[in-house]
Amino acid sequence: MAEAAARKRSRGGGGAARRAERTSTAVETAKFIQRNIPNFEVLNDEALEIIEHNAETVLEEIGVNFVNNPAALARWKAAGAEVQGERVRIPRGLARQLCGTAPSQFTQHARNPERSVEIGGRSLVLAPVYGPPFVRDIDGGRRYATIDDFRTFVKLGQMSKWLHHSGGTVCEPTDVAVNKRHLDMLLAHMTLSDKPFMGSVTEPSRARDSVEMSEILFGKQFVSDNAVMTSLININSPLTFDDVMMGAMEVYAEAGQASIISPFIVGGAMAPVSVAGTLTQVLAEVLAGVAYSQLVRAGAPVIFGAFVTSIDMNSGAPTFGTPEAAHITYGAGQLARRLGLPYRSAGSFCGSKLPDAQAAYETANSLNMGLLAGVNFMLHACGWLEGGLVASFEKFVMDADQLGALHGLAKGIAVDETAQAMDAIREVGPGGHYLGCAHTQANFKSAFWRSEVLDYKPFETWSEEGARDTVALARARMDRMLATYEEPVMDPAVREALLAYVAQKKASMPDAFS
Amino acid sequence: MAEAAARKRSRGGGGAARRAERTSTAVETAKFIQRNIPNFEVLNDEALEIIEHNAETVLEEIGVNFVNNPAALARWKAAGAEVQGERVRIPRGLARQLCGTAPSQFTQHARNPERSVEIGGRSLVLAPVYGPPFVRDIDGGRRYATIDDFRTFVKLGQMSKWLHHSGGTVCEPTDVAVNKRHLDMLLAHMTLSDKPFMGSVTEPSRARDSVEMSEILFGKQFVSDNAVMTSLININSPLTFDDVMMGAMEVYAEAGQASIISPFIVGGAMAPVSVAGTLTQVLAEVLAGVAYSQLVRAGAPVIFGAFVTSIDMNSGAPTFGTPEAAHITYGAGQLARRLGLPYRSAGSFCGSKLPDAQAAYETANSLNMGLLAGVNFMLHACGWLEGGLVASFEKFVMDADQLGALHGLAKGIAVDETAQAMDAIREVGPGGHYLGCAHTQANFKSAFWRSEVLDYKPFETWSEEGARDTVALARARMDRMLATYEEPVMDPAVREALLAYVAQKKASMPDAFS
Repeated sequence: MAEAAARKRSRGGGGAARRAERTSTAVETAKFIQRNIPNFEVLNDEALEIIEHNAETVLEEIGVNFVNNPAALARWKAAGAEVQGERVRIPRGLARQLCGTAPSQFTQHARNPERSVEIGGRSLVLAPVYGPPFVRDIDGGRRYATIDDFRTFVKLGQMSKWLHHSGGTVCEPTDVAVNKRHLDMLLAHMTLSDKPFMGSVTEPSRARDSVEMSEILFGKQFVSDNAVMTSLININSPLTFDDVMMGAMEVYAEAGQASIISPFIVGGAMAPVSVAGTLTQVLAEVLAGVAYSQLVRAGAPVIFGAFVTSIDMNSGAPTFGTPEAAHITYGAGQLARRLGLPYRSAGSFCGSKLPDAQAAYETANSLNMGLLAGVNFMLHACGWLEGGLVASFEKFVMDADQLGALHGLAKGIAVDETAQAMDAIREVGPGGHYLGCAHTQANFKSAFWRSEVLDYKPFETWSEEGARDTVALARARMDRMLATYEEPVMDPAVREALLAYVAQKKASMPDAFS
Repeated sequence: MAEAAARKRSRGGGGAARRAERTSTAVETAKFIQRNIPNFEVLNDEALEIIEHNAETVLEEIGVNFVNNPAALARWKAAGAEVQGERVRIPRGLARQLCGTAPSQFTQHARNPERSVEIGGRSLVLAPVYGPPFVRDIDGGRRYATIDDFRTFVKLGQMSKWLHHSGGTVCEPTDVAVNKRHLDMLLAHMTLSDKPFMGSVTEPSRARDSVEMSEILFGKQFVSDNAVMTSLININSPLTFDDVMMGAMEVYAEAGQASIISPFIVGGAMAPVSVAGTLTQVLAEVLAGVAYSQLVRAGAPVIFGAFVTSIDMNSGAPTFGTPEAAHITYGAGQLARRLGLPYRSAGSFCGSKLPDAQAAYETANSLNMGLLAGVNFMLHACGWLEGGLVASFEKFVMDADQLGALHGLAKGIAVDETAQAMDAIREVGPGGHYLGCAHTQANFKSAFWRSEVLDYKPFETWSEEGARDTVALARARMDRMLATYEEPVMDPAVREALLAYVAQKKASMPDAFS
């Protein structure tokens, strides 16, 4: 399938793709995860049926609002929903039935075909943090993000072996006008990385720009035939679909591009304070959003999203890595699979202000849960700090390293003859050791996952080397990654066309800063 | 059952127990975890059968060594094993059959009956770090542990809500003679805590001292009738049972006290470099060890232990929180359940020298895996640092706080009418918020787990308060815990008898420092 796509793309005009293919061995990237372990399921069938029944009740009795969007209301009416003002009440079963045309799995193509990803089924695709207005690093502390920071993150993403996806708004380039920054961000993803990326969603016109730039990169026909972007469409929970996000989603669905339809929920604020209640609302919202995407274009690729966290009821602050967030993530995964949709959730979530132990506990809790919950697309898989307000350079590198552990876990346990190691046990016998035995010599290189950031040295060596903590170790690794970074090869004509497009678009409008 | 035990104990002479009962509300301790979530199982039946078959082959063809232990060899011979020198070859099926008399679940009694724990079935009992010769804190750095440090840890354990067990050698009190320190450690557990504890295993005579001190604390008849200690018996992997550990185990089994029979494995060194090979050896070792405990006394309570980690093949250092360690922990849990034995594994494992992000990633990976693997007794659940060489005060507090998240996860998802929250969804409707609604007001206090260490405040508040990292936050909490610590009430006569026993024992022998 990837091969066919590559051929197709070549015909479609992608000299860039051909070039990338020839040089793609320069930077090692792991294949997206194909799980060989089961999903962890916390809800039994009875509980799932209660939640599914209640979600239909929510859609039928309470309904959802499509704000400032007469076209959406018309579509819903035509499909058989009851429309009153902006409220859409969806008869029991209709939304689920409409979701049936969405694919259960799809390929998102990268300009380097080796880096295309399968989203759905048993796969897990890892993408970096999305959205922070601030960045933090060990030298400069916390500050507003710039387009230079953005480019650095894209380079780090390109160099991160366990990261499959370049992401979208890795940080907000606040030094570029609001109405123009999507152009610079897309240009960075397209030129500095050859991994798949996300499109802009902050206005329908910016979504159209994203499609047009993709057409330059991949060729018009290829974009028409294939998903080359997966973009993040947040629902205004509870039960509200605003015109900006829906407008962007409409553009992407019409162009056959993928959207993550994702409730954005801090439990206790935008959803009930209980897990089952939150799952009910999440399911109702996703059912309505995905159904609507299929009304726009049946067969448009979409992902069942769930960004859900809990709240600290003392301060109102969102909290991360908590057991309730885990319950929701596990439960929503089950609901997504019963609906036959790819599933997006989890990430390197934390509330900590620093990339310290708090950040790592919270992040590890969330990453592990994401793998076991059957997540297919994990946005925010590295670099998230301070409740998503900050993209941390060092944490990006630390988290991206931990993603390697997820790859190892997902492999499952081999029980072939080599793995059984009976010869080794016979050779060594009681009281011996395995360090030098034949089986160890033959297998040690691939036997254990090895961090490229963490320190395993003896105390004395570690002390002599400066007694560095994880942040300092990550910074050293980050510097090495950036020093060895090379821009992936691109057809000069494509690059020129992209630059010209961005220049022309920027010249066509005044700067807007809100 | 707990009530009956309390009555029995009162008859048995425990004035201390009666007193403790009356005052036991002073410090809040969570009940041991009773899981309401499934176990995560990575091995299918075919893989399990291969490993079980291979383990029997190891016992039959290779056998195990019982070193310096003629009595053990005689017992094995009488049971039908083939004994040559110190090598014991166990016919296929015999070890498993002997394991059949070990209970699948047992109660370990605490002097405060409210703190007695059930070990086995769906339970998870959490106990602190065991064995480090060093301690570390933010003020003093890394230094040799003393008996004062030990007492401070026991106090912190007593004050830790989510810790069910006072543990054993929380750190090595290196300022006390090797042959006497067990007396001071036991005295600290017995007087400064009213949670259950572990006995000494470093010599059979010290195990006997542990039983005698327990008889003073609980009454002789009570100790004869009930498990009041769960002690750690390590196997010298591969396949070797030394006389010191076996000698201690024999004392405990004869006294009806519980032992954890635990291979101590750094994969690639003391076991094959593959997961399936390691599981095979672990199972063979536990089968032989548990079978032997039942030869000593049929029905003696034992736990299937697995201390297993991976190795960094570049440096030879043990590594923690790795995917291979997780695979082994999940797999060994399945093997233990098929054998019908309680299971010990996982812990706050990390290789980091500091309680930093590395420590927290590694620890969170291991704690989460321990919960989902069905572990019944988790030693080292808090405070472990630097591959077990160091007990960290701040990490003890940080980890013990994270254990609260495990309690939350284990609860599973309620789907009763209150949890369904349909009234709340109706009340709030599209575009509203849940902060003030009736359902939130009624349920928010118990809805979400809340850390008592981590910082959830806004950046500005956190900055004004000193921009503290997790270690500083933990230190502040530790100081509060120690400031509010109160010794649990104890019958003065019992205390006097314990002190007299320790004094008399110490006077009876010269100091030994190795």
